[in-house]
Amino acid sequence: MDQTVIDKIKASFARQSYMTTLGAALDHIETGLVSIRAPMSDHILQQHGFAHAGVAFSMGDSAAGYAALTLMPAEAEVLTTEMKINLLAPASGDVIIAKGRVIKAGHRLTIVGADVFAITGDQEKHIAILQGTMISS
Amino acid sequence: MDQTVIDKIKASFARQSYMTTLGAALDHIETGLVSIRAPMSDHILQQHGFAHAGVAFSMGDSAAGYAALTLMPAEAEVLTTEMKINLLAPASGDVIIAKGRVIKAGHRLTIVGADVFAITGDQEKHIAILQGTMISS
Amino acid sequence: MDQTVIDKIKASFARQSYMTTLGAALDHIETGLVSIRAPMSDHILQQHGFAHAGVAFSMGDSAAGYAALTLMPAEAEVLTTEMKINLLAPASGDVIIAKGRVIKAGHRLTIVGADVFAITGDQEKHIAILQGTMISS
Amino acid sequence: MDQTVIDKIKASFARQSYMTTLGAALDHIETGLVSIRAPMSDHILQQHGFAHAGVAFSMGDSAAGYAALTLMPAEAEVLTTEMKINLLAPASGDVIIAKGRVIKAGHRLTIVGADVFAITGDQEKHIAILQGTMISS
Repeated sequence: MDQTVIDKIKASFARQSYMTTLGAALDHIETGLVSIRAPMSDHILQQHGFAHAGVAFSMGDSAAGYAALTLMPAEAEVLTTEMKINLLAPASGDVIIAKGRVIKAGHRLTIVGADVFAITGDQEKHIAILQGTMISS
Repeated sequence: MDQTVIDKIKASFARQSYMTTLGAALDHIETGLVSIRAPMSDHILQQHGFAHAGVAFSMGDSAAGYAALTLMPAEAEVLTTEMKINLLAPASGDVIIAKGRVIKAGHRLTIVGADVFAITGDQEKHIAILQGTMISS
Repeated sequence: MDQTVIDKIKASFARQSYMTTLGAALDHIETGLVSIRAPMSDHILQQHGFAHAGVAFSMGDSAAGYAALTLMPAEAEVLTTEMKINLLAPASGDVIIAKGRVIKAGHRLTIVGADVFAITGDQEKHIAILQGTMISS
Repeated sequence: MDQTVIDKIKASFARQSYMTTLGAALDHIETGLVSIRAPMSDHILQQHGFAHAGVAFSMGDSAAGYAALTLMPAEAEVLTTEMKINLLAPASGDVIIAKGRVIKAGHRLTIVGADVFAITGDQEKHIAILQGTMISS
């Protein structure tokens, strides 16, 4: 993959203060596939002690957005226009990892997906799946 | 409205460490309608300096969940099963407010919506709309 | 409302053979609001004898698309890019009516909603709600 | 696969008059995967001469519902509670095929997906992707 694109994604991610707030870091970047991981931590929980649905959403959304960006022109920026999440299991474990992927790259609109997992030891539990649209600007 | 339900929502909200992380507070509770507000702050931004789509999602999702809870039996807990967001405008302003509402209350599943606004002075900008499903457990 | 736009919508609707197949007709056109109605009939049912979810979806989608078209430039055409439906109640009754509405009109993308009702006598039952995105081309 | 389940799906499909109206037939049934196909025909089109988004939705929704049914108890019936579709390309070709799949089977709720293709000769074009929730009753 073009190092320019990798650097652009790293720089963009670093500007997302919200990702820092969640404790999230870029995990993997390849063409059409970007993953983001964060430790399960005490400040991202909902009322039952699991990670909030919004955490899975946010990580999945960012991972999917950067996956789209790998296939956009060098000068493009990416924004979410819409995103849907289905929650599959409670978000409990040691680490959350969101794997974004491109379903269909287009000129302006790119259709994306993301799968979010909670990891405990070497067990990976599928906790959420997202499907949505990114726009290049 | 029954004070028991109000107290239950306040106690549940207080257990959501993630809402504290976002700087969010309960703003209004009535039957079928709950709103949550948070100041726009430096630690919830995306790469362009607007609030992250995940913040609008998270606040809308929590507001909609509590709106659903106002119509559930006293002992019920509420969980999101799926939620979709359309982003309408960049999240810039002084305050974000998410207004959750019940579209159709059911025995197990409650269909909900939420509208999220960014407020600057006395200007209210509609930045996102959510539609999804809550389950009582 | 501009008669040119009304004529354009009527001509476009008349070209939709699928709407004819469903027995659907334009019911009402105003700026940002278009409704479509169809009799409940024997050839649009699912396995339990209710109208298929796809019928509510299709009518809601067309109604929302034409609602978007009322706010687009005169030469624009409209296409759905994504649409989500929540089913609220079984589609039983005499008539189905789908009411499309514009949530946020934009330059290229218009965010829309639709509510679908089943009517029995003078009773109107809310059977589905849609939220999605139209693109002008 | 259990012949009882196959027979149950075939009988259920045969009761869907709407599938007959679309010209749709069951194409393939296996555990967690059901596909439905229909010829592109003159009575299912939108205003530009492509198959209506509602046709891709309806076929994808039915395919996903039956995929869910393969994993439900013998006496269960299946209903869609919500479904989202992203349109990827215009629906033009000779045949439409919708491939439903189970993402996560649950006690009451099953999360499903579907991919819809338009086939011209031996070319398969991905025209839509769906993600939603089925409920057993």
